[in-house]
Amino acid sequence: MKHTDIKKVLFDADMVGTDTVVCGWVRTFRDSAQVAFLELSDGTAFQKLQVVIDKNSLSVDPEATKLGASVCVKGTVVPAFRGTGSELNAKEVILLGKCPPEYPIQKKRTTLEFLRGMPHLRLRTNTFAAVFRVRSVAAQAIHRYFHERGYYYINAPLITASDCEGAGEMFRVTTQPWNAPYKTEEEYYKNDFFGVKAGLSVSGQLEGEVAATAFGKIYTFGPSFRAENSNTTRHLAEFWHVEPEIAFAELPDVIEIAEDMLRYLVRAVLEECPEELKFFDSFVEKGLIEKLTHVANSDFAVCSYSDAVALLEKENARFEFPVHWGSDLQSEHEKFLTEVVFKRPVFVTDYPKEIKAFYMKQNADGKTVAATDLLVPGIGEIIGGSEREADLEKLRTAMKERGMSEDAYRQYLDLRRFGSVPHGGFGLGFERFVMYCTGMENIRDVTLFPRSVKNIM
Amino acid sequence: MKHTDIKKVLFDADMVGTDTVVCGWVRTFRDSAQVAFLELSDGTAFQKLQVVIDKNSLSVDPEATKLGASVCVKGTVVPAFRGTGSELNAKEVILLGKCPPEYPIQKKRTTLEFLRGMPHLRLRTNTFAAVFRVRSVAAQAIHRYFHERGYYYINAPLITASDCEGAGEMFRVTTQPWNAPYKTEEEYYKNDFFGVKAGLSVSGQLEGEVAATAFGKIYTFGPSFRAENSNTTRHLAEFWHVEPEIAFAELPDVIEIAEDMLRYLVRAVLEECPEELKFFDSFVEKGLIEKLTHVANSDFAVCSYSDAVALLEKENARFEFPVHWGSDLQSEHEKFLTEVVFKRPVFVTDYPKEIKAFYMKQNADGKTVAATDLLVPGIGEIIGGSEREADLEKLRTAMKERGMSEDAYRQYLDLRRFGSVPHGGFGLGFERFVMYCTGMENIRDVTLFPRSVKNIM
Repeated sequence: MKHTDIKKVLFDADMVGTDTVVCGWVRTFRDSAQVAFLELSDGTAFQKLQVVIDKNSLSVDPEATKLGASVCVKGTVVPAFRGTGSELNAKEVILLGKCPPEYPIQKKRTTLEFLRGMPHLRLRTNTFAAVFRVRSVAAQAIHRYFHERGYYYINAPLITASDCEGAGEMFRVTTQPWNAPYKTEEEYYKNDFFGVKAGLSVSGQLEGEVAATAFGKIYTFGPSFRAENSNTTRHLAEFWHVEPEIAFAELPDVIEIAEDMLRYLVRAVLEECPEELKFFDSFVEKGLIEKLTHVANSDFAVCSYSDAVALLEKENARFEFPVHWGSDLQSEHEKFLTEVVFKRPVFVTDYPKEIKAFYMKQNADGKTVAATDLLVPGIGEIIGGSEREADLEKLRTAMKERGMSEDAYRQYLDLRRFGSVPHGGFGLGFERFVMYCTGMENIRDVTLFPRSVKNIM
Repeated sequence: MKHTDIKKVLFDADMVGTDTVVCGWVRTFRDSAQVAFLELSDGTAFQKLQVVIDKNSLSVDPEATKLGASVCVKGTVVPAFRGTGSELNAKEVILLGKCPPEYPIQKKRTTLEFLRGMPHLRLRTNTFAAVFRVRSVAAQAIHRYFHERGYYYINAPLITASDCEGAGEMFRVTTQPWNAPYKTEEEYYKNDFFGVKAGLSVSGQLEGEVAATAFGKIYTFGPSFRAENSNTTRHLAEFWHVEPEIAFAELPDVIEIAEDMLRYLVRAVLEECPEELKFFDSFVEKGLIEKLTHVANSDFAVCSYSDAVALLEKENARFEFPVHWGSDLQSEHEKFLTEVVFKRPVFVTDYPKEIKAFYMKQNADGKTVAATDLLVPGIGEIIGGSEREADLEKLRTAMKERGMSEDAYRQYLDLRRFGSVPHGGFGLGFERFVMYCTGMENIRDVTLFPRSVKNIM
């Protein structure tokens, strides 16, 4: 259908005075004796286009004025009587699709929880248009950031026969029926699609290391899966994951890249989504723009786990879970560090090896590994990374200590056998980053069709 | 580790005369009485960096000269004695990681089939470095193309409780053990992670339509899954899928966008991967660059299915499967149309409704639907698309004729209930596009870790 994007009609000054056609959905309708006003949205702009109907010269099908109806309007572009941009003086209003009164997205304020019950219609609200614009802009910025810096974009496999140690429960992938008639596990999997037990990947890191030790700098940006039986506002069974991996990088390099990337992404959202951020700042999180501007411009702090624990121990009285060296940091400790102590994002580094994964580089002290978590105010951990153990024998020892099978990690060990190099990387949970940029407090509200335990609408 | 990308050392004229450090893997070593030469790769450039070692002034650990070893070299950048760019006069060569002689990637020519047995090491060959550079550049171009044109990038869910009709077998996703002790299917799924039967999505189209009827223009670029028991050079169980969906678009608009996008992508690869394409043109597909240049510059043909069948029927003697109106076009027919009849890419349109999916817009003739497949020389079908049925009653009838349950498609039908609009879109199999651009003939060779029946290395 020949038509013009509403964004262009609104903001392209060359359009003023011309006749054009727009298509869109009715977002409001106001009527008076002489004139009626339709506000239209077609998804191209956050601002709606006002269509002015001179009732003396034009009569409009009442169905074309109903909230949610789709219409096509021919008219003349004129400067807006109020506000910025242009509006359209209608010459003809054509109804494309009716919208009956049982349409559940009405003007009155609804709750986010109510809208979660209709994921296919909630996208037609201002809030979700803004969330998914920010999400799209942030995703684009991720690709741009890495591509401009010479990283290969790679697609790690999602169906996998291995398990990235310690990352929680995995979904199983099968073509067997629910009541497959096999007597033994071996027989069951031998007759399954892949001939072995297969599951959904929890991380592309191991394959990312394979690619980085060939291509130098790589990143993945794809889905990861966790079959965790937890129903929180910060966890999904299916989420998108950004995982860069860099050859010849040590922990300080990983930290430098993570900080640079995060600031780049925040700046991109600030620059490309000003209207959406204004909306979130007004209606979702007061002070959001100031928070993001601060992060875009401040240097992040770096603090070793040992120093962080020393700081936290003095405050143990205020915590539900008192801290001591060797314990995992809980959400309350992470928030205290980033919100009270440092008042900005902080990289905590060099965690005890017992609470981190087998593949992390063992430090010379024999007690810690070259890992880092980035904590940000308001959300806690947003990035986890490390330098990887590049020494074959140290890696084998760490695996043995954890009772892991070398057989399942033959490829991974080969990377240390043939031209091993220092390397490292990190993971960013994409939905958490979108939450951080929008102020949305439930991960289900930054995800098109969120999946979690007992939830697959 | 402080070091400079080999690409910069090779091609940045400002580097000449400076001292720098590079890191990389040894790709060749040549020795003579006075001088030795190491060729290094770090993944940043297709061309290798030559390191010149004056044996009178510098002695080098023999382990640092072995194929596949990783090294760090300090030296002075000088113009290359032969060829383009710069080389490095070594002052110090530091061994990072040894590479023992059992390293399976040796200089001698090997077959692609042999390399498929070691997906983690084959990436260190010229061929795979070039394939995955093209793949990365093409992926980037896809995001850029749509972002610059105002499309929202959306992530359709991969775990799904519905089934996109007629797209083949689905994988099942479960957290039940292989021998879950339930008596009935109902009980089994009630106790499964999602509480219902769930599988891996074969297409993001239905969710794409949801998003397009809110945001206007959207695209997905993510994985899709097919549990097909077929072992061909063109099918994978897990592949990446580009699926734009556009509101207010009819079939001619869909065709225009598909053609514009495909030409944009081919041009991006031609411009950004000249060295890689030269390599493929020499060693993989003679005439590749000419083929791609032709596609980038030629208008694509458009031909209705009925006209195509009329053309093909005259040639039925040459086909294994004779054609008649109503039959599905086979690979041999598609190739004949694009390679012999049109000698360029051709959109075949308006297929019989019986051989296409339920959601396609029914044409006024009562016999055909507004579908299109794009056929390209050398590969056959690369894009499939359609205008979608926007009329609620026609869609319900099509579903009834196929015995489909309305219940499972309640959301999808709602899009036609509330402000329905003409819309359409298409799907591009990303791996097939990479095959087309590189000349690689097996889809397993353009995929990092390919998955197919009984194959999950």
